[in-house]
This record gives sequence, C-alpha cells and structure tokens, in this order.
Amino acid sequence: MIILTEGNTNPVAAKTATSVIRYRREEVVAILDSQQQGGTSQELLGLGGDLPIIGQLDQCPDANTLLIGIAPAGGRFPNAWRLIIIEAIERGLNIVSGLHDFLSDDAQLSRVAKVNRVTLTDVRKNDQRRVASREGIREDCLRIHTVGADCGVGKMVTAIEINEGLKSRGHDAKFVATGQTGIMIEGDGCPIDCVVADFVNGAAEKLILDRQDHDILLVEGQGSLVHPRYSAVTLGLLHGCMPQGMILCYEVGRTAVHGMEQVSLLSLEKLVEIYEMMASAMHPSQIIGISMNSRRVSDAEATAERERVRKRLGLPVCDIFRHGPDDLIDAVLRLQIELFA
Amino acid sequence: MIILTEGNTNPVAAKTATSVIRYRREEVVAILDSQQQGGTSQELLGLGGDLPIIGQLDQCPDANTLLIGIAPAGGRFPNAWRLIIIEAIERGLNIVSGLHDFLSDDAQLSRVAKVNRVTLTDVRKNDQRRVASREGIREDCLRIHTVGADCGVGKMVTAIEINEGLKSRGHDAKFVATGQTGIMIEGDGCPIDCVVADFVNGAAEKLILDRQDHDILLVEGQGSLVHPRYSAVTLGLLHGCMPQGMILCYEVGRTAVHGMEQVSLLSLEKLVEIYEMMASAMHPSQIIGISMNSRRVSDAEATAERERVRKRLGLPVCDIFRHGPDDLIDAVLRLQIELFA
Repeated sequence: MIILTEGNTNPVAAKTATSVIRYRREEVVAILDSQQQGGTSQELLGLGGDLPIIGQLDQCPDANTLLIGIAPAGGRFPNAWRLIIIEAIERGLNIVSGLHDFLSDDAQLSRVAKVNRVTLTDVRKNDQRRVASREGIREDCLRIHTVGADCGVGKMVTAIEINEGLKSRGHDAKFVATGQTGIMIEGDGCPIDCVVADFVNGAAEKLILDRQDHDILLVEGQGSLVHPRYSAVTLGLLHGCMPQGMILCYEVGRTAVHGMEQVSLLSLEKLVEIYEMMASAMHPSQIIGISMNSRRVSDAEATAERERVRKRLGLPVCDIFRHGPDDLIDAVLRLQIELFA
Repeated sequence: MIILTEGNTNPVAAKTATSVIRYRREEVVAILDSQQQGGTSQELLGLGGDLPIIGQLDQCPDANTLLIGIAPAGGRFPNAWRLIIIEAIERGLNIVSGLHDFLSDDAQLSRVAKVNRVTLTDVRKNDQRRVASREGIREDCLRIHTVGADCGVGKMVTAIEINEGLKSRGHDAKFVATGQTGIMIEGDGCPIDCVVADFVNGAAEKLILDRQDHDILLVEGQGSLVHPRYSAVTLGLLHGCMPQGMILCYEVGRTAVHGMEQVSLLSLEKLVEIYEMMASAMHPSQIIGISMNSRRVSDAEATAERERVRKRLGLPVCDIFRHGPDDLIDAVLRLQIELFA
C-alpha cells in the first residue's frame, strides 16, 4: 500500500500513517506527499527506515491500495485530496480511509470507483444500534483499558505493546481496537468515536462480549474524560468496556490540550482520581500503571521524570518505547493474580 | 394532531406523548391506541383531561398530523406500527417521529408519503459535524443544566418549568431542548443523543453559542453520568454546555436504573460529588438544588422526603408539580447574583 499524507508528513498530523508503518511496515511501499518528495519516512516520521516519500503515484507502480494517513480534528476530507484520490482510483488502487466523511457516500468517488472496479473502505463507517445490557459479562476475563490525559499521548500503542508482550510471555491476550488506526492494524474492532451517541456504551460492551473468550483484553482508549471535544466518546467507552484495571497515558512536557492551548491539562493525581471514580461507578477499577510518552525529552530527562512520577503516584511508570513495556505488563499480571488467583 | 401510543399508553412508555400533551394540549385532538379505545388521557396518562383514546384514525377526521408518542430504549421503530403509519399517510396526515430509526430513510414510507404529499419529520435526524472550540462563550450568560440520577426522572420538565417561572417573573430565559420531546415542545434544539459521538460536545456547545443572547439558559439534561447505557451522551452534553449551575433530578423510591434492575442507583450525595467533579473539570460548577419527582408517593411521604433531603444536602428541594418550582427558581436567581452582581 501507499500512504497518503500530502502536506502533513509529521508524527502528529500523520498519526495514522505513523502507526500503520510501525505495525504493518512490510505492507507499505511508499508515502505520498508531493511537498516532501525524495525524503524518507525515518527522516520525517522518525520510523520506517528508508521507506520513500514519493511525489506522484506513478513513481510506485506496484501498490494495490492507497491508505489515507491523517486523522484531523473532526475527520473532514481535505478537498484538495480529491484529485489525488481520483487518480489513485483510476490507476486501480483500492482506497482505505478512516475519516468521518465517508468516501463511499461521495457520489463522484463512488462512481469512479465502480467504473474502475476498486473498493472504497471507510473504516469508521458503522451501524451500531445496540444499547448496553450489562448481561453476560465474563467476570474472570481481565479487561485492561488505556486511558489518557489528552489525545495523541499513546493509548493505542500502549495497549498494542502490552498485548504483544503478554502474548510473547505465553498469555492469551487480545488487543481491542476502538479507533480507525487500531482497526487498520488489528483487522477488527469498532470505530467508537463514530457511533451515534446513544449507542456508544453498547458498542463498547459488544467489543467485550465478542472477545471475552480471551483471558486478557487490552482495550484501546479514546480522548480523555476531561477533553473539551471528545469526553463523550471516552466515558461511553470506559463505561461500556468496564475495565478492572486502567493504564494512564500522558506526554511529558505537555501542559495544554492538543489544539486548544487555552485549556490546561489536569495533574496526574487529579486524572487518577477522576478515572477511578468514573470507572468504579460502573465496576470496581483502579489505575495500575502510568504510560509516559517522553518523545520530546532527552534520556536523562525521561529517567528523572519516571522516578518523580513513580514516587508521586506509587505506581509503575515507563515509556513503552524507551524503556520497554515490561513494568506495565507486570502490573497487568499482578492485577490478574490479585483478582482471580 | 393525533398521538400514536399503540399498546403503550402509560406515563413511562409514552413519555413523549405525556409531555406533548402537558405543554401543547390545545394542539392535540386524540390519542390512538386500539387496545385502550374509549378511555381518556387523564385516566391512562394522569393528565390531558377528557382527551379521547381512539381506536382508529377515521374516528378523528380533523387532524393533519400523527405524532409518534413513545421513546423506547434504542429508539427502534415497532414494525407493527407500519400499517397504522401507512394508513395515516394515505389519509393525508403528516408524520412526526422522534425515533432513532428514521421514517424518512424507509423506502416504502418515503414513497407513500411522496405520493400522498405529506411530510415525514424525523426530529432526531441531524448532521452535526462540529467539534467544540471553547471560544466565544459569553461569560455573563447564566447556564443552568438539569442533570439526573437516571433516565425519566424529570430533567426536561424541570428545565421547562423553571424557564416558564423565570419568564413569568420578567427574566430573559430560554429553555434549551436536547431531546426529541423537548424539541417537539420548544420548536428548536438539538437531539444530542443522536449525534455522532465525536461531535456531541461540539453540538452541545453550539446550542449555547446560538442562544447566549438570553440572560439565562435552562439546558435539558440527558441520561445520567453513571447510566450504563447513556453516560456518553450525558458527559458530552455536560462538557459542551458548561453550566455554572446544575439541578439534580431524581425519583423518590427508585433504587435501580430504569429497565436494568440489576444496576443500583447511587446516593444523592455521591451523585452531587460526581456531577460537580466532572462539570468543574471543564468550568466551575455546582449543584444548586434538587428536583424531586414524587409521583409514586403520597403528599405526606413527599413532604417528609423533601425535609430529609433538604437537611442531608443543605440544598433547596422541591417537586416542581406538587410544590411548584419556586424554590429552584430562587436558587437560579441567587446564583446569578452571586456570579454576576
């Protein structure tokens, strides 16, 4: 596949691209951004090695899919991309999109896709119409939920890395994707932020009911309980998936809500209090560890921050990429023993 | 208009019918329920006087609208009603529905409506696609939000009654409808529970931005912050409308979530704590009064409960219908003075 990030090839705007490259590198042949042509993924996104940035589709003739690699606030379709997508369709590429604006609802794109016999896949499209029941929940399935101080702090990658670590230690774990990028990586899940509000809790509960044959579920979190834009998504997901344990994710040095500089972030202590109170209103739950995203600071600063937060909160703390996820995996297994042994 | 409540003519299942009759009585000519034919609204719903229950549409030739008067969990369209609705359309009646299943998306109903030149109005249909901005909020507009211990405890009627009381005392107040019934009564608003999850907070904020030329807004609450099914709706609305003051609504004697008897309700003290914490994470906010729905108890029991709760919480308490809403109106005006005087 080729990943389209036109004009947005940086780790924040191209969050989807970055994660797809991280976890499905072998399927990606190029990044399409005419403004950054000639560079490499490693230079611009900090991963992906020599994966090339191409300026035009004909520079990469062997792809069969174009994946839209950005996740803008509101999920709108940048209209400037229409011509690129039409060209891709005409070259026979299937299109995969995680935007709120569904490509398959666009009359022109649908028509062109039909003529060229390619598929338009809207990962966020869903028809969830189920309210939560609170029935049939398997109590000895351990549900771990990654929650956050904000968007874009590492809730998805924390769930994935813990899941991978548990599996490599021989445990029967499963990553439960709740956003478009997670679904692209895992191949299943529910785009919870695109469910009609009345059915968010029910859709999250269904994710659990359908997967509780596994011993441990790692449920990807969304937004934050105190996010001015997305707290509805966060609470519905939290209440629907009823975690016994939560891992709080934050970014070192971030002081305001991403994209809303006038809104300050809360302290980790306050976040622990809020998440534990709101989760436990539905099912007893505790924060069992802190996932610290330290991408913007040095090794020394990361080490110092890790020690400080460990001491302040009395919880395991690590940057899953810098330090590895073992401390958090151990915390999950301790909770499993505490609850079920 | 005729209100359809077929087989569900009771105050709980026919919540929409009951409120439309309460606030738009002069526009209603009959209730349609073939199973209760010959009765009156007063007997079955406890209000509406001699408004007749009819068994067939031809018993009431002078209506021009059929309004669907139930709000079931999940908002599904009871298929048994299809024949009744088709008959109504063929008799030239416009149809108004608040269900999640949109009549206007139904191929058969749309076709029949077109042939008979009547309109199908889906009150819940919306295309909200705006994320919250936290910009342009008028700080000296007093935002009061009715919040609840559960669904169906009186959040809408509390907001309406306080709004009416404020207006009759000469204040510039406005009821802000957030559900299908409120919108049918007020004529504007947003069906917040039918907005796509990512845009719930933004839709609620827009309700405020569009109405803050008024001095006081009474924003109808939805669900409960601890409702297993609908807490996503509740939190997005709470964070989007950023109330300075909240009124907590509950029903005397109810101990479990309506329709989920296995889920206990929290104490009023705990609810006050949760609502104040979650609202204040976005904007300083406090519970200023308690709206007590005492429909299932005697006058003496209601009086005793009112005194008990007043003492326990140190807040004004009243049943807006039994005692009148004056105590809550006074609480709103005290907050206005406290904040803006």
